[in-house]
Amino acid sequence: MAEVLQLPAWPPLVLFSVLLVLKMGAVAFVTANARRKSTVVVNPEDVMVNPGTHVEGAEAASTMRAKRAHVNDAENIPAFLVLALLFTLAGASAAAGWAYFGIYFVARTLHTIFYLNAVQPWRTAAFAVGQLTQLGIIVQLVLGLL
Amino acid sequence: MAEVLQLPAWPPLVLFSVLLVLKMGAVAFVTANARRKSTVVVNPEDVMVNPGTHVEGAEAASTMRAKRAHVNDAENIPAFLVLALLFTLAGASAAAGWAYFGIYFVARTLHTIFYLNAVQPWRTAAFAVGQLTQLGIIVQLVLGLL
Amino acid sequence: MAEVLQLPAWPPLVLFSVLLVLKMGAVAFVTANARRKSTVVVNPEDVMVNPGTHVEGAEAASTMRAKRAHVNDAENIPAFLVLALLFTLAGASAAAGWAYFGIYFVARTLHTIFYLNAVQPWRTAAFAVGQLTQLGIIVQLVLGLL
Repeated sequence: MAEVLQLPAWPPLVLFSVLLVLKMGAVAFVTANARRKSTVVVNPEDVMVNPGTHVEGAEAASTMRAKRAHVNDAENIPAFLVLALLFTLAGASAAAGWAYFGIYFVARTLHTIFYLNAVQPWRTAAFAVGQLTQLGIIVQLVLGLL
Repeated sequence: MAEVLQLPAWPPLVLFSVLLVLKMGAVAFVTANARRKSTVVVNPEDVMVNPGTHVEGAEAASTMRAKRAHVNDAENIPAFLVLALLFTLAGASAAAGWAYFGIYFVARTLHTIFYLNAVQPWRTAAFAVGQLTQLGIIVQLVLGLL
Repeated sequence: MAEVLQLPAWPPLVLFSVLLVLKMGAVAFVTANARRKSTVVVNPEDVMVNPGTHVEGAEAASTMRAKRAHVNDAENIPAFLVLALLFTLAGASAAAGWAYFGIYFVARTLHTIFYLNAVQPWRTAAFAVGQLTQLGIIVQLVLGLL
């Protein structure tokens, strides 16, 4: 099915799907780095791979903040990737693909930056932009069924 | 590839994928609302966007309950959406699409309602129906490989 | 679109997508079993479906370990399933599908086994192999856009 490569929105779909997954991975890296710097781990065996750390019953506040940003990604990005793929398969235009997927990627990246740096109300605003972008795709998908 | 629109199970796939994502978003909204009503936030900067709240080390019990329902969604729904798409691309019938995707959506919606309202054993029963529905799709996908 | 069945990487995509989802479900089962054996639940209504348990403010350490393994799956596997599907739709070879998807499945299964049994640095090594496999798919997807 090389004809999938002819789908107008295929290039932005692949590009921004990849960037969103890499962005999620970056938050995981930030979490691991915060854990190392906090010197607190919850898995006793992790002391071995994080020399200088010790075990406590809960992660440090800095680690938990990064973790919350990551969990928010896990709650939102995978489902968005599926909707973006459905939208592309349904024949979305290249312009719609670049606009919807690009705006969502920027909004989610800003959400992460604002979360890690405790910036409100901008974190909530960035989250809202991402959700509104997804809502736009949802409306177009449903209209396509009529 | 407008021919994807000719896939027999495309309409139920799009409809129930959208409804499942919206249902997940609704749980996020319930969580945010429980947080506001509990007056407890864990991110200090969130006091600004939730006037009248104060910071504690952990979310209120009501917030954590909604959060657990949301996490259960994040653990299950995105993977189901991918399997449902594979099943549709493999040529599932319209009847199979409406039945499998519709039952899963109803089961997951009931799971959320039962979780938020602490109703057992119905929450476990609704979870089991969703998992069995997914197992049906898995069996058909694997049989399709033979 | 029965022609999707002609995609070279379709058989390994379906097989390993199914196995990864079943593996995630197995971790959920391990978590539920750890909860039952720990006799500690956090939802008061769960005492009914887990006779002999009682309510505490936090799960037992054994339950939380299984839960962390499950959350790590939820943070990584759904996004991988989408990338694997994009890679397949773009015309990946059967050999690439069997290699990438198979290695990822083995790496994630070992990650879970090592997490549940507190085996380091092998858990981190298994995680890294999974991420590198995903990175290989990402590189091929992006090269396909050029």
